[in-house]
Amino acid sequence: MARVVADMSMSLDGFVADPQDGVGKLFGWYGNGDVEIPTADPQYTFKVSPASAEHLRPALTGGVGALLAGRRIFDLTGGWGGRHPLGVPVFVVSHSVPDGWPRPDSDTTFYTDAFAALEAAKKEAGERIVAVSTPTLTRQYLDAGLLDEIVVSLVPVLLGSGIPFFGGLAKTPVGLGDPKVVAGQGVTHLTYPVIRERS
Amino acid sequence: MARVVADMSMSLDGFVADPQDGVGKLFGWYGNGDVEIPTADPQYTFKVSPASAEHLRPALTGGVGALLAGRRIFDLTGGWGGRHPLGVPVFVVSHSVPDGWPRPDSDTTFYTDAFAALEAAKKEAGERIVAVSTPTLTRQYLDAGLLDEIVVSLVPVLLGSGIPFFGGLAKTPVGLGDPKVVAGQGVTHLTYPVIRERS
Repeated sequence: MARVVADMSMSLDGFVADPQDGVGKLFGWYGNGDVEIPTADPQYTFKVSPASAEHLRPALTGGVGALLAGRRIFDLTGGWGGRHPLGVPVFVVSHSVPDGWPRPDSDTTFYTDAFAALEAAKKEAGERIVAVSTPTLTRQYLDAGLLDEIVVSLVPVLLGSGIPFFGGLAKTPVGLGDPKVVAGQGVTHLTYPVIRERS
Repeated sequence: MARVVADMSMSLDGFVADPQDGVGKLFGWYGNGDVEIPTADPQYTFKVSPASAEHLRPALTGGVGALLAGRRIFDLTGGWGGRHPLGVPVFVVSHSVPDGWPRPDSDTTFYTDAFAALEAAKKEAGERIVAVSTPTLTRQYLDAGLLDEIVVSLVPVLLGSGIPFFGGLAKTPVGLGDPKVVAGQGVTHLTYPVIRERS
């Protein structure tokens, strides 16, 4: 079965973007190294440290089978030009379908219900990972007990304010296992298993 | 000169205590291992993993020369019975001196001004570390550019709410260096240098 994995870059004080949705202070590690990692978008090539390359490669070479995203990041990126750098189908949770979408040249689809989107993404992913790349969906799936792993690429900066990765959780505390740690350059990658409560 | 180091256990979502000041979910790693580390208080012996022991020992064997604390933690712990587990003089920042204090059997002293307390603690510490163990003082010293290091003992749990380590910073972003990482059991110790802006 697909594993559902929330994966974001986060400041040490818990933010995945500044108050203006800026991620400049958090995404530096995608470009601060010597190891080139091509993406599905010919215009994007990551240049990362050897450690970050080791961390990223599995996801970029077939490990991820589907991506769940929210409407805000879809709009901010212009729908990734129709093709996300991960090169996998994107399932966008949104109250409405944006004008001009869906497009025949894109495998991005739209869902009003976060859980219907997750089901569709899991079906698409098969045995691969379903990546969740928004805090809102992370919260919803955590509260529903549907998240298997949390990957935090922890960036050595304090932003002071912004959009929290883990805001508004309804069911806490959430227990996690000890992380797998990969020490990159300008980032520490921490992969935590979510511990499900016995019911 | 003394190094000024903020050092606390923090949940992955950034809290150093729950809303009721509880730290039960964050302090488990002090007692989940086989390596016994005596403290200055005969009633407290830490029992930690080998990795956490390696992380803790320098502080507990002369590395720390003075501790800065706030009034809330002083009251919650009953003033550590007059002697903090670290076994060093404690400098408490408080609007008022609590009844019965200072005591002749204790080297705990009281300051109304956070910066006067820091000066006194640095004088006491000499070449050793001044440990800062409250979020309020951490914020004040960070804003004033007086903090040298941040040690986060990152605990694999999401609390959802509570007292943030890094709330209310006035001067952001604060740049940090890559951390020294020690992977414990039920905790990941991350030691970050604070990068001072060139003025």
